[in-house]
Amino acid sequence: MVKKAVTAASGLAVGFLAATVFFGNFSGPAKTTTTAASAKSNAEKVYVPFGQKDEYYLFASGGHSGQLFVYGVPSLRQIRTIPVFSTDSATGYGWDEETKKMLGGYTWGDLHHPAFSETNGDYDGKYLFATDVANSRAAVLDLKTFTTKDILQVPNTSGPHCAAFVTQNTEYLFLPTRFSVPLGSKYESLDDYSTKYRGVMSAVTLDKEKTKLNVAYQVALPPWSYDLSDAGKKESADWAVMTTYNTEEATTNLEINASQADRDYIVLFNWKELEKMVKEGKYEDVGGQKMIFPEKQKGGIYLVPVAKSPHGVDVTPDGKYFIASGKLAPALTVFSFEKAMEAVKKQDFSGERNGIPVLKYESVMEREVNPQNALGPLHTQFDDKGMAYTTMFISSEVVKWNPKTGEVLDRVPVQYSPGHSSAAEGDTVAPDGKYLVSLNKIAKDSYLSVGPSHPESMQLIDIAGKKMEVIQSAPVNPEPHYAQMIKADKIKTINVYPKDENNPLATYKQDQARIERKGNEVHVYGIAMRSKFIFDSKAKRQDVIEVNEGDHVFIHLTNNDRDEDITHGFAINKYNLNIEVQPGQTNTVEFTADKAGTFPIYCTNFCSALHQEMTGYFLVKPKQ
Amino acid sequence: MVKKAVTAASGLAVGFLAATVFFGNFSGPAKTTTTAASAKSNAEKVYVPFGQKDEYYLFASGGHSGQLFVYGVPSLRQIRTIPVFSTDSATGYGWDEETKKMLGGYTWGDLHHPAFSETNGDYDGKYLFATDVANSRAAVLDLKTFTTKDILQVPNTSGPHCAAFVTQNTEYLFLPTRFSVPLGSKYESLDDYSTKYRGVMSAVTLDKEKTKLNVAYQVALPPWSYDLSDAGKKESADWAVMTTYNTEEATTNLEINASQADRDYIVLFNWKELEKMVKEGKYEDVGGQKMIFPEKQKGGIYLVPVAKSPHGVDVTPDGKYFIASGKLAPALTVFSFEKAMEAVKKQDFSGERNGIPVLKYESVMEREVNPQNALGPLHTQFDDKGMAYTTMFISSEVVKWNPKTGEVLDRVPVQYSPGHSSAAEGDTVAPDGKYLVSLNKIAKDSYLSVGPSHPESMQLIDIAGKKMEVIQSAPVNPEPHYAQMIKADKIKTINVYPKDENNPLATYKQDQARIERKGNEVHVYGIAMRSKFIFDSKAKRQDVIEVNEGDHVFIHLTNNDRDEDITHGFAINKYNLNIEVQPGQTNTVEFTADKAGTFPIYCTNFCSALHQEMTGYFLVKPKQ
Repeated sequence: MVKKAVTAASGLAVGFLAATVFFGNFSGPAKTTTTAASAKSNAEKVYVPFGQKDEYYLFASGGHSGQLFVYGVPSLRQIRTIPVFSTDSATGYGWDEETKKMLGGYTWGDLHHPAFSETNGDYDGKYLFATDVANSRAAVLDLKTFTTKDILQVPNTSGPHCAAFVTQNTEYLFLPTRFSVPLGSKYESLDDYSTKYRGVMSAVTLDKEKTKLNVAYQVALPPWSYDLSDAGKKESADWAVMTTYNTEEATTNLEINASQADRDYIVLFNWKELEKMVKEGKYEDVGGQKMIFPEKQKGGIYLVPVAKSPHGVDVTPDGKYFIASGKLAPALTVFSFEKAMEAVKKQDFSGERNGIPVLKYESVMEREVNPQNALGPLHTQFDDKGMAYTTMFISSEVVKWNPKTGEVLDRVPVQYSPGHSSAAEGDTVAPDGKYLVSLNKIAKDSYLSVGPSHPESMQLIDIAGKKMEVIQSAPVNPEPHYAQMIKADKIKTINVYPKDENNPLATYKQDQARIERKGNEVHVYGIAMRSKFIFDSKAKRQDVIEVNEGDHVFIHLTNNDRDEDITHGFAINKYNLNIEVQPGQTNTVEFTADKAGTFPIYCTNFCSALHQEMTGYFLVKPKQ
Repeated sequence: MVKKAVTAASGLAVGFLAATVFFGNFSGPAKTTTTAASAKSNAEKVYVPFGQKDEYYLFASGGHSGQLFVYGVPSLRQIRTIPVFSTDSATGYGWDEETKKMLGGYTWGDLHHPAFSETNGDYDGKYLFATDVANSRAAVLDLKTFTTKDILQVPNTSGPHCAAFVTQNTEYLFLPTRFSVPLGSKYESLDDYSTKYRGVMSAVTLDKEKTKLNVAYQVALPPWSYDLSDAGKKESADWAVMTTYNTEEATTNLEINASQADRDYIVLFNWKELEKMVKEGKYEDVGGQKMIFPEKQKGGIYLVPVAKSPHGVDVTPDGKYFIASGKLAPALTVFSFEKAMEAVKKQDFSGERNGIPVLKYESVMEREVNPQNALGPLHTQFDDKGMAYTTMFISSEVVKWNPKTGEVLDRVPVQYSPGHSSAAEGDTVAPDGKYLVSLNKIAKDSYLSVGPSHPESMQLIDIAGKKMEVIQSAPVNPEPHYAQMIKADKIKTINVYPKDENNPLATYKQDQARIERKGNEVHVYGIAMRSKFIFDSKAKRQDVIEVNEGDHVFIHLTNNDRDEDITHGFAINKYNLNIEVQPGQTNTVEFTADKAGTFPIYCTNFCSALHQEMTGYFLVKPKQ
């Protein structure tokens, strides 16, 4: 039965030149040629004069920087780096107690796929989710402040690469893993890979009241690699899909061994069904988590054969189809949710794989599309007319096509090797059809050289007309993988942190600034304000902190400037610490005064003409 | 005698509205108005179409990010963040042994003033220097690779803010400190500030053979704050200047107390004289450093009165003048090196301050310039015609003027509160006169909001014509202070790290990849190449490392892809480590296998179509 599924999909597998696979087909597509006339018009299209603002925010993953990059579109100017999984001294992220605790002992992460919260399948501009492939975490950011509010260490999980994608009312974000490991990361021989290793998908919920993430349940999937996922929309809203590779269950040299079979699978699951199973107790406890084992708890999860090593799987805005392709193949496949649901209903399976029913490729496939000489389809985005835009990694281009007819409408070269792309509101039920950003993996010689390692590259494509036009190229720090683009007016930021009179660590009145000692603990309730520090309102020198060597010091600092953008920093020379307090905010830094001597304190974030004078001293009396 | 100096300079002090000082005069200057026609032409001026490259590199300090930001000009696109003083997971900086050791236990820094190496007063494109205000370090970057090669912990020093500026053949970079502390940062009461605290200037040299920094000698300056410095040029090449503030020697509330006196000083010194003193043994040993005490070793150091709280001091390209201004004042002062040298020769002093001779303001001053209603001159750059461009922090504008006549030629508003500016080749003997970048401290509402804390802002000004024109605005991550702009063709990067057959840690041949155990030390001599890891060429699974819990593990990884831009990463899931190996490079990561279990290894830096398959496993056998 399994054999049949293989046969059905084998027509999709294609030969390819090893050389192009290893590095992309650089000599292939012509470079974007820009005549003087078109450069003029492109320049105007992307230029945002002072006094005007960009139309869209682009939130791009920062990969192994661990952070999130925020750009304006169409200018492609980077507005902000938001620290998420790695420490960031520019904002004191990982130094103040709240963020240090949130990072859970880790100092870096590998942020792959950001996803906005959604209401009725539309980005609602409230939260952004992201996952860390390196240290198996998930995060939620509050878009009122553009800050990370919670980080969840996802148990039983190794590299939640193909997340986060959220359901259409943010009921769940699903986090399937790129790597398979023994449950709980126990030590097991790789000889027992097929029996003892598993991929795990976690269903995570957001507690909006507390802005906290929680694992609702997990699913122990076969020991394959899960690459990308997408949630259904409208009629397919209860469903989600994710791609797999290494269904060969190879344990070494995946470059060769994970591309042996002609097909891998799309995992198709109904999360309402899984929710029901959990309610009915159809799970096992694994390290405190509710784990569904599909081979034991039947239903809700199915496999759809697809050309080998697919990367993206993308649901069309109308929720009717999902598109996936073998990443080394030329062909794109459109699958029908309706057909899939029908096949599930009829139990029209070709057999099982690892205890999970396999649907027949031909029962679920709607159409195959094969743009001539295009190679390496990775990821598909959509416009307002339902047209699809697929990045071709190997042939370095974006292909515009019609998922309803299979007609190829346009192709445009990008420089070079595009991974994902992001269309304006492109993952919603109603994309805007204005811009597409191609996230290119290799910049080659596009920009001024910065040594042996080059920047990545983003290119902005105008997709409003019939023909696509690449209108801007911008270098990018390593390394964006996925991005989402949202209409700027959907995000409502606050200007100043509201006063919290219940916060015992906050000091809002100058005469309450004080230093309290409890044994060898010293608590400073201090104020930062233009252009001075007040640590002790009663002292001869209000901006001086004096402690004894070995004291355990807590600085609770409140920024009493209630004006937008007046952020203060707090650093002690040679003490390797820096925190920031944004307008109205209170933060704490805790450390041991382990170096005796005289150390200047200063504000690290420019705040006024007298910022340079915003200093003090940290005096540490030596032990006798 | 001191009193006389005060009187001489007092004419420069000006009243100002407290409100404007505290936050800059936001309501003052009109915003740059951009008509449709001028927007068109500005758009074209800054647009660099694909296939073309920027004309200049701009190297901007990243402030408390600890890093250096590299931009292209005129596009203002950020090409690279180079990690210098803070860890950076995107490049594994601070994880591999070489950079971890270089960081010296610190995980962040506050990078203020980058400076290129010079030959004959011209940027030679070879090295870049930078200093860390937070943890008192200096760094040198090699521009062949755009990487940090050495970090020097500067002894006896607290916050080398007003550096680095280099002499015209890179004989020295001078690092004077922003803060005064007791020598060696010993614990001393602030009541003894005037007698026991000192500012220290370090003269640092570069060993070009080893790309290492060394302290040649130090000078124990009065307990004041030193803000900015510049080296002389041509006829003034043996001299250097630096600004001071808090010559009041206030120890608290500097916002008020460091602005009491009407004047501060420019410290004028002859480094050839200081060099001679050192040769003659006219110094004391302080913690192993050669420390000159000017009150004891007379000569070579002089004070020039200047309006209170100056920030920048800038030597004109012809080396004839230095320009400095009180940062709260409206007036700019041009001082003459020739007059100063003459006064020194004649010993025409008004007296001494802290044992250092004070020159008479009127003997050294060439002219005062007072642009109407301009406030807050901070820093001056130059064009090819010798014209000066001064940023006005409080009135938020750039003023173009002629240092030889004092004529004010043009003024242009910038948004908002410019600190430094950087002209094309602006600190050399021959500026290009093409562009000026204004580094603005406050973006206000210039860009899409990213919460209570906004980005900083850079603005590009076309200075080629008679009138200045602001042609581009770009948001910036916190927080550029100073920048230097160099013609792109001056920098010659390498594409691939050369093979080093003498490096015992490098593995260039696949069959030499091996794992060696010495007691509980495990040394992996591994290879990263598209698209796999080879850790042990003889093993059944070449991409697997198996150790025992508690083992001390060294991974020596060589990137055997000798192609430009094919950088590989190496991370172990949940082990909180990531290093990169650029093409041809060998790096080591050292850690203890303190978690038993099964942990995926993967390449973190996108390298090929099969990057996703470039994985392995780290198996840690639990202790019995």
